[in-house]
Amino acid sequence: MKINGKYYRSIWTDPAKPNSFFIFDQRDLPHQLSPEEIQTWWQAAVAIKDMHTRGAPLIGMTAAYGMVLAAVENLASPDLLGTLKGIGDQLKATRPTAVNLAWAVDRQIACAEKSQGSNSDLAQALRKQADEMADEDAQTCKKIGEHGLKLIREIAARKSGPVNILTHCNAGWLACVDYGTATAPMYLAHDEGIPIHVWVDETRPRNQGAKLTAFELGQHGIPHTLVADNTGGHLMQHGMVDICLVGADRVTRCGDAANKIGTYLKALAAHDNGVPFYVCVPGSTFDWGMRDGLKEIEIEQRGDEEVKYMDGLDADGMIRNVLITPSSSPAANFGFDVTPARLVTGIITERGISPANESGLVSLYPEKA
Amino acid sequence: MKINGKYYRSIWTDPAKPNSFFIFDQRDLPHQLSPEEIQTWWQAAVAIKDMHTRGAPLIGMTAAYGMVLAAVENLASPDLLGTLKGIGDQLKATRPTAVNLAWAVDRQIACAEKSQGSNSDLAQALRKQADEMADEDAQTCKKIGEHGLKLIREIAARKSGPVNILTHCNAGWLACVDYGTATAPMYLAHDEGIPIHVWVDETRPRNQGAKLTAFELGQHGIPHTLVADNTGGHLMQHGMVDICLVGADRVTRCGDAANKIGTYLKALAAHDNGVPFYVCVPGSTFDWGMRDGLKEIEIEQRGDEEVKYMDGLDADGMIRNVLITPSSSPAANFGFDVTPARLVTGIITERGISPANESGLVSLYPEKA
Repeated sequence: MKINGKYYRSIWTDPAKPNSFFIFDQRDLPHQLSPEEIQTWWQAAVAIKDMHTRGAPLIGMTAAYGMVLAAVENLASPDLLGTLKGIGDQLKATRPTAVNLAWAVDRQIACAEKSQGSNSDLAQALRKQADEMADEDAQTCKKIGEHGLKLIREIAARKSGPVNILTHCNAGWLACVDYGTATAPMYLAHDEGIPIHVWVDETRPRNQGAKLTAFELGQHGIPHTLVADNTGGHLMQHGMVDICLVGADRVTRCGDAANKIGTYLKALAAHDNGVPFYVCVPGSTFDWGMRDGLKEIEIEQRGDEEVKYMDGLDADGMIRNVLITPSSSPAANFGFDVTPARLVTGIITERGISPANESGLVSLYPEKA
Repeated sequence: MKINGKYYRSIWTDPAKPNSFFIFDQRDLPHQLSPEEIQTWWQAAVAIKDMHTRGAPLIGMTAAYGMVLAAVENLASPDLLGTLKGIGDQLKATRPTAVNLAWAVDRQIACAEKSQGSNSDLAQALRKQADEMADEDAQTCKKIGEHGLKLIREIAARKSGPVNILTHCNAGWLACVDYGTATAPMYLAHDEGIPIHVWVDETRPRNQGAKLTAFELGQHGIPHTLVADNTGGHLMQHGMVDICLVGADRVTRCGDAANKIGTYLKALAAHDNGVPFYVCVPGSTFDWGMRDGLKEIEIEQRGDEEVKYMDGLDADGMIRNVLITPSSSPAANFGFDVTPARLVTGIITERGISPANESGLVSLYPEKA
């Protein structure tokens, strides 16, 4: 997607610098976004651990390219595969709960195991596979976008004025390689010339909506308005939302969706006001072994400092962290909630749109029957 | 209620200083709360206008005592009533939309009109009436507390562990003279020894929950936990909330309740999870001329800076205002939403608890039939 009018992916290579790859250092968003050249696997590990880069797909891709650099750095190794396995374990340990991270490292290890030629051939094979993985991720998101786009087109056809979309958190291209998941239909609709306007929930306590979604939509030129998370119900009561599009971190085979805390409240409001509510995810987000999301999905609790402190840009252009609550008041920080399938109009995947139930999902993914 | 173990009202007089009254300067809450001696009506006007004091009942009381000082300052006036009317208009203009402000000033003017004696007698009559108004307000809140207390007692009787109460915004004693409205049942239950625990919504964008409710509950010693506004749905899904108690700014004769933005979302979650949801208001909050809150109650839109900026205490103990969104992203700021009566279990008033419907409310307030 675009930043300052120029097209970017969130992770990229430069033929002139074959022993590097590039990401954005996202830590100071929305106030600052700097390209960062990653020259060693260790630098990739630091970028993941210290959250220069974030979002499950992007973390995975950073590790995949990190494995390429690990091979390049160890071309002289008598046991490159063994070396790579050790480095892979260290990369996996940078964010131990990120499923995509382990998946990406394991896929590179499997590729290395299959490589028959020289160490240099092996490095080349890893590079090729990393490029393929990035393209795959972008393509998956684009397909989600194409399926979601049909819904937006239908709404645009029956109303005047922009299609008003509400989203929660950041299921955007900054978390993926390109397009994002929930944002993909928005980018495709906008690029096709359909007038859209996005209500962006700020998404307390980590403010991913205010920091990331508003930033990326704004850079791409999509009209949007930030709102406090409290606002969506009022907007839906008054006909100001045509469709809700959100991502998810995990979806059960019956269509229950765990996503950023607060998603459930928006789904309730959508249901109460007849607003369609769609969850946008790639097939890899389904947990086919789970049925009842409320009972089975464990909800991460995070530190109270995310609720009690806020960072932002002061009048002097310095990023500062300030205490916004009584210092002695405890705070709880549940990271996610589960939206029951009954509140979800449909699930938009790279294979199409399914109702949020087992029979629908299994007919899209018959291999999981 | 208590601060640092000592009992306070939010507005008070001191017999040793008969030509003053006292409030807290609430602007730097929760980080700082300083008593402020008000010695002139003009100082009272500034305290209202610059929001040293806030909350409809407290603004009204500040104006009522401001009128006392106006009389004391103008004892030599040949037309004290005329002087007071002029000052009353200036006091009313400090926060033109505050209904209680005009009501309090008009009540003092009416008292002055009835006064038959000297200017000094008139000033004395205003002082007496201001004291009565303060006592009335505290008594009204206390009665709301007593009716709500019965609900908390019932819950405590049928469960082990603390009664978990969720509240939104600040309907607390800092906004009233004492007790608060939604907080009154909490204070009475706590003081009676019933174990309670309050989930406090931070209440973006103005953070009245984090700044005020958490502060006052903490000072009074009531166990509480701050949460992002996104959290209540998850808490209710998992049985962590026994009852919701909120205030309201306006309630229609059919029981629709306009309250701080986001209240509707919590009411939806309460309804979806069978959690009782009560609105706590004095009789003066009813708008008996309105029926359909969604159609008839106009929702105030406020400046986007409340969404885009946040203030808090930095590491050096300075209160700083920081930008927390992309500077170029617009933000919308709807101040209130309307919770339809169908989602409200009951309305707790100083006269008792009514179902949220016209027949119930009119039987509590038969004079409004």
